[in-house]
Amino acid sequence: MKWIIRVNARTGKISKQEADQEEMRWGGRLLISKFLLREVPPTCDPLGRFNKLIIAPGLLGDTLVTTTGKFSVGGKSPLTNGVKESDVGGEAGKKIARLGIKALVLEDIPEKAGTKVLTITANQLTLSEALELKGKPVSETIKALRTQFGSQAGIICIGPAGEMKMAGAGVAVTDANDIQVRYAARGGLGAVMGSKGIKAIVVDDTEVAPPLAYDEALLREAGKTLTQAIMEDPKTENRHKLGTPAILMVANELGLLPTRNFSAGRFEKAEEIAGERVAEVIAARGGEGRSGTPCVRGCVIQCCNIFPDPSGKKAVASIQYENIALLGSNCGIGNLDDIAELNDLCNQVGVDTIETGAAIGVAMEAGVIPFGDAKGAKDLVLQIGQGTYLGRVLGNGVVITGRVLGVRRIPAIKGQAIPGYDPRALKGNGVTYITSPMGADHTAGNAFETAKTVNPIAKENQVENSRKLQIRAAILDTMGLCLFTRPPFVKNPELFALFLKGRYGWNVTYEDVQKIGIDTLETEREFNRCAGVSEELYDIPEFMREEPLPPRNAIFDISMEEMQQVWEVKIPQDVF
Amino acid sequence: MKWIIRVNARTGKISKQEADQEEMRWGGRLLISKFLLREVPPTCDPLGRFNKLIIAPGLLGDTLVTTTGKFSVGGKSPLTNGVKESDVGGEAGKKIARLGIKALVLEDIPEKAGTKVLTITANQLTLSEALELKGKPVSETIKALRTQFGSQAGIICIGPAGEMKMAGAGVAVTDANDIQVRYAARGGLGAVMGSKGIKAIVVDDTEVAPPLAYDEALLREAGKTLTQAIMEDPKTENRHKLGTPAILMVANELGLLPTRNFSAGRFEKAEEIAGERVAEVIAARGGEGRSGTPCVRGCVIQCCNIFPDPSGKKAVASIQYENIALLGSNCGIGNLDDIAELNDLCNQVGVDTIETGAAIGVAMEAGVIPFGDAKGAKDLVLQIGQGTYLGRVLGNGVVITGRVLGVRRIPAIKGQAIPGYDPRALKGNGVTYITSPMGADHTAGNAFETAKTVNPIAKENQVENSRKLQIRAAILDTMGLCLFTRPPFVKNPELFALFLKGRYGWNVTYEDVQKIGIDTLETEREFNRCAGVSEELYDIPEFMREEPLPPRNAIFDISMEEMQQVWEVKIPQDVF
Repeated sequence: MKWIIRVNARTGKISKQEADQEEMRWGGRLLISKFLLREVPPTCDPLGRFNKLIIAPGLLGDTLVTTTGKFSVGGKSPLTNGVKESDVGGEAGKKIARLGIKALVLEDIPEKAGTKVLTITANQLTLSEALELKGKPVSETIKALRTQFGSQAGIICIGPAGEMKMAGAGVAVTDANDIQVRYAARGGLGAVMGSKGIKAIVVDDTEVAPPLAYDEALLREAGKTLTQAIMEDPKTENRHKLGTPAILMVANELGLLPTRNFSAGRFEKAEEIAGERVAEVIAARGGEGRSGTPCVRGCVIQCCNIFPDPSGKKAVASIQYENIALLGSNCGIGNLDDIAELNDLCNQVGVDTIETGAAIGVAMEAGVIPFGDAKGAKDLVLQIGQGTYLGRVLGNGVVITGRVLGVRRIPAIKGQAIPGYDPRALKGNGVTYITSPMGADHTAGNAFETAKTVNPIAKENQVENSRKLQIRAAILDTMGLCLFTRPPFVKNPELFALFLKGRYGWNVTYEDVQKIGIDTLETEREFNRCAGVSEELYDIPEFMREEPLPPRNAIFDISMEEMQQVWEVKIPQDVF
Repeated sequence: MKWIIRVNARTGKISKQEADQEEMRWGGRLLISKFLLREVPPTCDPLGRFNKLIIAPGLLGDTLVTTTGKFSVGGKSPLTNGVKESDVGGEAGKKIARLGIKALVLEDIPEKAGTKVLTITANQLTLSEALELKGKPVSETIKALRTQFGSQAGIICIGPAGEMKMAGAGVAVTDANDIQVRYAARGGLGAVMGSKGIKAIVVDDTEVAPPLAYDEALLREAGKTLTQAIMEDPKTENRHKLGTPAILMVANELGLLPTRNFSAGRFEKAEEIAGERVAEVIAARGGEGRSGTPCVRGCVIQCCNIFPDPSGKKAVASIQYENIALLGSNCGIGNLDDIAELNDLCNQVGVDTIETGAAIGVAMEAGVIPFGDAKGAKDLVLQIGQGTYLGRVLGNGVVITGRVLGVRRIPAIKGQAIPGYDPRALKGNGVTYITSPMGADHTAGNAFETAKTVNPIAKENQVENSRKLQIRAAILDTMGLCLFTRPPFVKNPELFALFLKGRYGWNVTYEDVQKIGIDTLETEREFNRCAGVSEELYDIPEFMREEPLPPRNAIFDISMEEMQQVWEVKIPQDVF
């Protein structure tokens, strides 16, 4: 991967440049932070001319290493006003990487809002008008593009929410055979894409030869080691069988499952929406239903699923923990069919399920509809797609929803909705939400995975633990590896160095790899500092320091001062 | 004035303490900045438990010096997230000062939203439930309180917008005989009051003896000098005859009159809404109409008016330049009767006319209603009061309106709407909007008054000029003097020292007075720095650096770097 492609949404000009030596060392999340700090004025309007939407495969993006089909989408977030990287599966990432594209950068905005499609093949880059796609839901958009570009193309697109520049909008990516819609969901990057008038990006790598690694044998060997270790990890089988909802009953037991706008941490209908139940329903209904499907080709974990409706027809793929927590328990909704339908509606409209579930929870608290009203909730998501005034409010995320409706209990940090782990009962995540350059984002350093070694409800060790988790996440996001590949690296961290040596011939050590993670975080922090959204400026929502969270009656009691220590130790350390 | 009264909106506890030596030196805007920095966590939720609403007369608040009936209302702004001081006329300020109250501080928020009235007399402080006032428009609220508390009480209250915690809500104050409604309009302080569940404050000073000054003769002499100088100022007669709309034709000629969502600086119907026209209509219609009325007792400028409807009945009092510019030309509305009605609706609902006019302008650009649709605009203001979804969006100000409706051209700085001077054609105001701790606020340093000496459209001298104007404004706001008293102080700046000596016996020089202004600004800047809203973080809206403003085709071309120099010179200097 060596090409940096820039598309100017105003002039229509497209350029293709070779990456320089320094840029060649960047990938995924690290590349996005470096590009943003170098090229985007930190105080700019996220939906204005000076923001950029950056798409970048991880450093291992063009290899056959498992899970590396994931790629990063980034820009200045209209929700947090800071740096945002959101990674995503699907088919497009691998194709972009195989085309040798290190970064695809969408720049400027058109004079008049448009509906354009960018097509990328080995020999051609084209930006063309596609007015017929204007306002189309995601699946319809994909279907129309398939007719034109065939079934082999990778598709990245936005729904009507992104076109309407709603700050809760995500960027959708198809998987093979268009079974799933994957989302670079968080931070409103769909609105950034919408502001540039680009409805879809079609990537076709059919004429491309696979790239040669520096040391194919070494790379293959390291890849095999990783795959084996993943297969031996006891969590893998659970993830494969039950998907990410596997954790729901544990989350419920730990009292951290967002319930009725974060007013409780345990939901009386948890069993009805848990991973075990998801698997049961899929098995019982048959039809198109499947457990254990991959989100990228070649993934050996395969934690996704196709959730069927009662007739066996696909309702949504994939139903995941965050969707269930935010659209389900957080809205008082305890029926998987309702949640699946809500999830699919969000996917079609093109909004983040976390942001939207949180916004609906706040609307329920405001009395717009009652908690548990699944029919009402579906109507609200439809309204987002229709762009009614209420829909536009909800589509702009939980903070705007709370402010407009006059609700004080707004579960957000740095403008972004808190995901499915209430920080009062999982304090490490509170530290991550506050101190991560990403704002409230569990993928930036999720303490749930260390809940057995660090007591989630105690004050002790949370800051140190969050630091480790955040550096780990930054490394994986830069490599293009799924967070679920973490356990093998914990056991054998030198594996990273082998991958980089095998792919690029870089003579790096594990310590160098840790420096990559820290460099990523420091670059992001510098951007945020210049943008006025440093970590010392956003505390946990005030109600979380006051209202004990039933049933464990936890409050968030780690002070801002303690949390700020997270970045005081900057020297590389053993983070895996 | 020596009492600091604190009212806890949660516990209902009211305390009365004597100011200490240091606090005795504070008043008005300076006091608010000091209290905020000392007591309010800068990163707190402006509508949460930790913000405070502070009411403080200026240092000369309890004297007979002309215009000193004005007083300051302050807190952390839900619009700017920074410090906010908004000063206002009416009757209540003088009464608060006569009661010896240096600061009235409303703290915390109630567990459940309430509708309370705080009554203040010489001997009693009472916080009582007044559910019958819930949701009542401002005039009805005042009327109901008059029945209970008599015609001599001063009343401070909020409308339904403040109760609904809309960030565009202001704090209303009655004048003598309830002819006018005056507003501490800017920055959403009405929402802060609403968050505390306090609908109104009733102040009765009937049993109080006037305070004794340190040197009555000196004070009286200085007061006489000021009054005489004001009367001799050629602007005074113009202001008295035409009110603040006196400047409209000049603003139009200079091409800085906000027109159709800041897309032009000259309005084809300017003559129909100018100050001359206001005076003509008042004279022609007779009835309750009046030009040249005061907003505080004892003011010799008397720049207000009572604008009558065609039948001679009061339509609104007072119609002013900002209202006409934002609700009129900025919305493409060129009829004074329409503007008067819109103005009155804003007063009844309880929202800032600047914020609301700007929000309606953005809604017109989004196509909600067309530019010039006065009937539609009135309906939008009514919707704010009714709390419809669209109304709640508009009531939360221009930035939320723009984001929700997907409009890029949002005329706001630091979250607050730009008042009636387009910064492209009055660049000094651009510098003030960016660098003032208040955000886009013309009263923080209005370069319109120096338009004859500093070319408003040129780049030169704007930064230096804004610095002077900002320090001046901070001094006047701390004294409790109207900004229109500036000319006499320019000629005779030692007058300030005489006032402070006469009132308090302080042995101060003019240089010390300048230090007061600088201290105010530096304290505010420090609060903003800690709140993450420093002046380097918010540039002028991007469109104002791109779109030339017709007819003079000016763009805003002063760089952020140049503007940041405004605070580099901190040593006292001759600012008058």
